Amino acid sequence: MVDTSDEWIFSHTGIRYRHIASEDQAASDLAVPAAKKAMAKAGVSPDDIDLILVATSTPDYPGLPSTACVLQEKLGIPSAGAMDLVAACSGFIYGLETARTYVAAGAARNVLVVGSEIYSRIVNWEDRGSSVLFGDGAGAAVVSVLSEGENRISPAILGSRGSGAESLCRLYGGTRHPYIPGVTPPEALLLQMDGKKVYTFAVAVIVQVIQDLLDQNGLTFSDLAYVVPHQANTRIIAAAAKRGGWDADRFYMNIEEYANTSAASIPLALDEMNEKGLLAPGDRVLCVGFGSGLTYGGTLITWG
Amino acid sequence: MVDTSDEWIFSHTGIRYRHIASEDQAASDLAVPAAKKAMAKAGVSPDDIDLILVATSTPDYPGLPSTACVLQEKLGIPSAGAMDLVAACSGFIYGLETARTYVAAGAARNVLVVGSEIYSRIVNWEDRGSSVLFGDGAGAAVVSVLSEGENRISPAILGSRGSGAESLCRLYGGTRHPYIPGVTPPEALLLQMDGKKVYTFAVAVIVQVIQDLLDQNGLTFSDLAYVVPHQANTRIIAAAAKRGGWDADRFYMNIEEYANTSAASIPLALDEMNEKGLLAPGDRVLCVGFGSGLTYGGTLITWG
Repeated sequence: MVDTSDEWIFSHTGIRYRHIASEDQAASDLAVPAAKKAMAKAGVSPDDIDLILVATSTPDYPGLPSTACVLQEKLGIPSAGAMDLVAACSGFIYGLETARTYVAAGAARNVLVVGSEIYSRIVNWEDRGSSVLFGDGAGAAVVSVLSEGENRISPAILGSRGSGAESLCRLYGGTRHPYIPGVTPPEALLLQMDGKKVYTFAVAVIVQVIQDLLDQNGLTFSDLAYVVPHQANTRIIAAAAKRGGWDADRFYMNIEEYANTSAASIPLALDEMNEKGLLAPGDRVLCVGFGSGLTYGGTLITWG
Repeated sequence: MVDTSDEWIFSHTGIRYRHIASEDQAASDLAVPAAKKAMAKAGVSPDDIDLILVATSTPDYPGLPSTACVLQEKLGIPSAGAMDLVAACSGFIYGLETARTYVAAGAARNVLVVGSEIYSRIVNWEDRGSSVLFGDGAGAAVVSVLSEGENRISPAILGSRGSGAESLCRLYGGTRHPYIPGVTPPEALLLQMDGKKVYTFAVAVIVQVIQDLLDQNGLTFSDLAYVVPHQANTRIIAAAAKRGGWDADRFYMNIEEYANTSAASIPLALDEMNEKGLLAPGDRVLCVGFGSGLTYGGTLITWG
């Protein structure tokens, strides 16, 4: 559909494969197996979940109802709180921090946090600059109360830079630029990206978030087992590692297999690392997200 | 546009007026004056805001970026965390509780919570059953740290019932039922409602939430200065008051002036009550929300 090649895509982005949802799948359908796996690993049943947070930019329904409510029904969770969080590719970091605060405040005992995205439905397949970058996927975690004084998730850093709102967006179809059938060109509903602006922003905030989280926790980079960045582009991560003076091999990447799955990329990576046996109890894992908004965020996890 | 009358609308819904955003206004534009007023009343400056939560079903952009990021830029708030919350007409209750948990967990000192909606852009003006019900508006609050041990917002009740997801929704335009230009009928993008199902749900959860919050706080109905319900329909509120055996006059209503403004209705009502001098320090105000998802929630505020 666009004038590009496998070689160009891989050399410029690090992406070799991506997974595309089938036509009958919505965001909640991808979320179900991810959520079930997370709940099984955490040893909690649907009855134990107090709150469902779904980070998504591609919800089942536009604006209402939330995908989290659909997931509540599909998982047989009895009347938990349920809401979607909109923070684009930083969504999972925002979700983890929101779950952490509910648990820390005593407002929930077990929070299901899901990142689920079907970007294949919103990319412009005729735009070479963006259509090659995105894949579909979902990942999930359960954030729970541990014993008194034990914290495996440190307070996060969350940030925004709304001046870049239109540098990665769906421009039409909201209340800013309403979609008028028959008047608005259909492609105006699709994702558009100013790649250079996003690149510059991303490299800067990755470095800043990592440094701030290290400082906040009294650590140095060598104390980290891994950095798990949002999987947007290998070049962004390489540039950030170089600018920070950090070992690029410490940044876990699986973009080659999944492309950019937005809010799903970080939980997908953590699950893969866990399945591969890369994580040992006590390992410090720093997750850093960035994306449309523009938003950014980071959180430090101590593996259990 | 539809076969109805002012008399029918008022007698069946309690609505006499509503406010419609001008064509050049998006959700973030309505949010700005509401947020500024809330910040002024709270005595906080943009520099003091750590986190921006915007509850909306009608965001500036569809899915990404968040309206909260746009608001961050418009208000000159320096790089706070920013995300939208999707919980439809229960959005402000979810937002307040999320703000409370961030503050209680020590993750934020001042959280700006906004409900902002432009339902005039998503209603089907040819549907008599729903188009007459909704209005546009925005309301806001700042949730802040008080001195140790002082809590003016009690832990909320948050709930969901996803089995009713399609009883109040925009059916097309998300990943469940994608919108295909030229194929999907344009009206499939608009709000649709099964009024009877929503009515039955709403009456039941209003009674349940009020009773549960009273029990949770060791109070009886007579301890409340006011109940501030989401302003959906006077008949829903009258039926809930009757079923609970409660004085209907204790339920504050301003639907006559604004119609149903979704996530904005509760903060709009609180602000109006405050301006009218109806609230005194120590007054207990119970807010209860319900709507698409289906979602519901309630929170107990002690006026300061």
